[in-house]
Amino acid sequence: MSLILALDFGGTKLAAAVTQVGSREWLRYERRLSPTDSNANTDLEIMRSLIHSLLQGETPAAIGVSFGGPVDFTTGTVRLSHHVPGWENIPLKDLLEEEFGVPANVDNDANVAALGEHRFGAGQGYDSLFYITISTGVGGGWILNGKPWRGAAGMAGEIGHMVVNPAGPVCLCGKRGCVERLASGPYMAQDAKEHLLTESHKFQSKILLTLADNNLNLITGKIISEAAAQGDELAINILQDSAWALGVGIGNVANLINPQRFILGGSVTKAGEIWWDTAQTTADKTALPEIDFEIVPAALGDDAPLWGAVALSESILNV
Amino acid sequence: MSLILALDFGGTKLAAAVTQVGSREWLRYERRLSPTDSNANTDLEIMRSLIHSLLQGETPAAIGVSFGGPVDFTTGTVRLSHHVPGWENIPLKDLLEEEFGVPANVDNDANVAALGEHRFGAGQGYDSLFYITISTGVGGGWILNGKPWRGAAGMAGEIGHMVVNPAGPVCLCGKRGCVERLASGPYMAQDAKEHLLTESHKFQSKILLTLADNNLNLITGKIISEAAAQGDELAINILQDSAWALGVGIGNVANLINPQRFILGGSVTKAGEIWWDTAQTTADKTALPEIDFEIVPAALGDDAPLWGAVALSESILNV
Repeated sequence: MSLILALDFGGTKLAAAVTQVGSREWLRYERRLSPTDSNANTDLEIMRSLIHSLLQGETPAAIGVSFGGPVDFTTGTVRLSHHVPGWENIPLKDLLEEEFGVPANVDNDANVAALGEHRFGAGQGYDSLFYITISTGVGGGWILNGKPWRGAAGMAGEIGHMVVNPAGPVCLCGKRGCVERLASGPYMAQDAKEHLLTESHKFQSKILLTLADNNLNLITGKIISEAAAQGDELAINILQDSAWALGVGIGNVANLINPQRFILGGSVTKAGEIWWDTAQTTADKTALPEIDFEIVPAALGDDAPLWGAVALSESILNV
Repeated sequence: MSLILALDFGGTKLAAAVTQVGSREWLRYERRLSPTDSNANTDLEIMRSLIHSLLQGETPAAIGVSFGGPVDFTTGTVRLSHHVPGWENIPLKDLLEEEFGVPANVDNDANVAALGEHRFGAGQGYDSLFYITISTGVGGGWILNGKPWRGAAGMAGEIGHMVVNPAGPVCLCGKRGCVERLASGPYMAQDAKEHLLTESHKFQSKILLTLADNNLNLITGKIISEAAAQGDELAINILQDSAWALGVGIGNVANLINPQRFILGGSVTKAGEIWWDTAQTTADKTALPEIDFEIVPAALGDDAPLWGAVALSESILNV
């Protein structure tokens, strides 16, 4: 029976799983947090130990890899990781092919997750879909005619760095008002903290402070979502700003490439109704009235990159 | 010798031409302004007379049509024109095929012009390019893997209604700060007029007023470009706002779909160096540093839609 090995190098997590060709169930599955001072070598070491524990001496037919950062898909070379040092120009496909003696495909996580949702999740039957992950960052993957569109140089899908408010706050990339700057979890937490450190107190925020034990450094996107669900004004405001930015981004993408369906995944999509309603309403307003699309939650959750890696492997095997 | 008939239904102009299959020269060519009170019937009547004068009794092998408005490419049905009444749901492909007894293809002008530039103009050799026309409106056409990408429902390419400044002025579509609202010729003229009607006189504008004979209603995008070239402060400011909006749009598109090349056509692209420099600089700043692209002027000028219509015909004939 042919085995497929699926690997997911995330910014903070490493996951690996094996399945049989054609199966839709994991045979074996492992997930680990990266150590806080991780680098490319420690990530590779941890992944090796996961792989050996999963394979139990067997040889897979092919390896599919999701990597959390820009990848040159043609050569399978990682360009860099924005979260983990040492990944600059690592030929991950070559490394794996040499080590395991089987073919491998490596692509960036948004493309791979999009492929996973397309083949096995909320995108089944949709030949043209745009997947967006809203989490530590914001990334996009586009399936066009049933295949990932990677762009002329493999850089397509960067909806996170679409400018939606040129008067907005400065993003890590240097621009103002990118979707990622407004919509991602860590930036939501930063905005809450900054608001609480000013003396304006424009918005009531007792619930948020209580949930964070009055420690501003403990505020996260998740705590903001909880506070918003309980009626905290500041939290609601920040969630709405996040969802608004994403909604403008979605509407702009709808106008530009007119996909059938948007699929949203990542931790921030667990933020609740206020967030989803605002994103949907804003996207509807931003798209031209003639342009139809649906926005749905991802079906595979955190496993979307791993299932996409299975699809990448199956494409090697022409399954 | 097989003839190809190429038709261009613009918002204010009608053009038709014939060429021989495989030729890159027009055999015969006609262009007319639409009357100011034109409708679909008068446009069709004028086009019929152009066609009969061009064909001189011969029968073409195929007909390619560029239409200035949304078109359902699959059926060749015009959805509407934003400029000329009466075009709602006109089955233009069927009408032409019945009348002339030969196959026809109909698509919207931005897609067709993109195809024209791809096959015969500034996009030769570029498999992935984004064409933008900046004129009365702002429209986009995307060539992907050498073919137009029309979107799931034929509505792709609407870069004109991408929001780039949510605090900006209101567009015809109801949103604030669309690319078209800031970058198109008529809106530039409107902004100049509104500035001159307020009492702020923030910018010096003597040159612009002189060029417009002190008649605000005579201000056009073209006059603004001339005034800017002569150093008029208001005109320079308005041109920069136009080019800035387009530049953000281009940078966002680069981040999102990573085409090799942007090709800009339409009257506003004749606005001169200030406009081009601002658009290029803003696009460079908006795109992520890892994303490369070129911005070049269209090579076919006003004939891009007609040459694209030739390419559409050749695709019917499998040339």
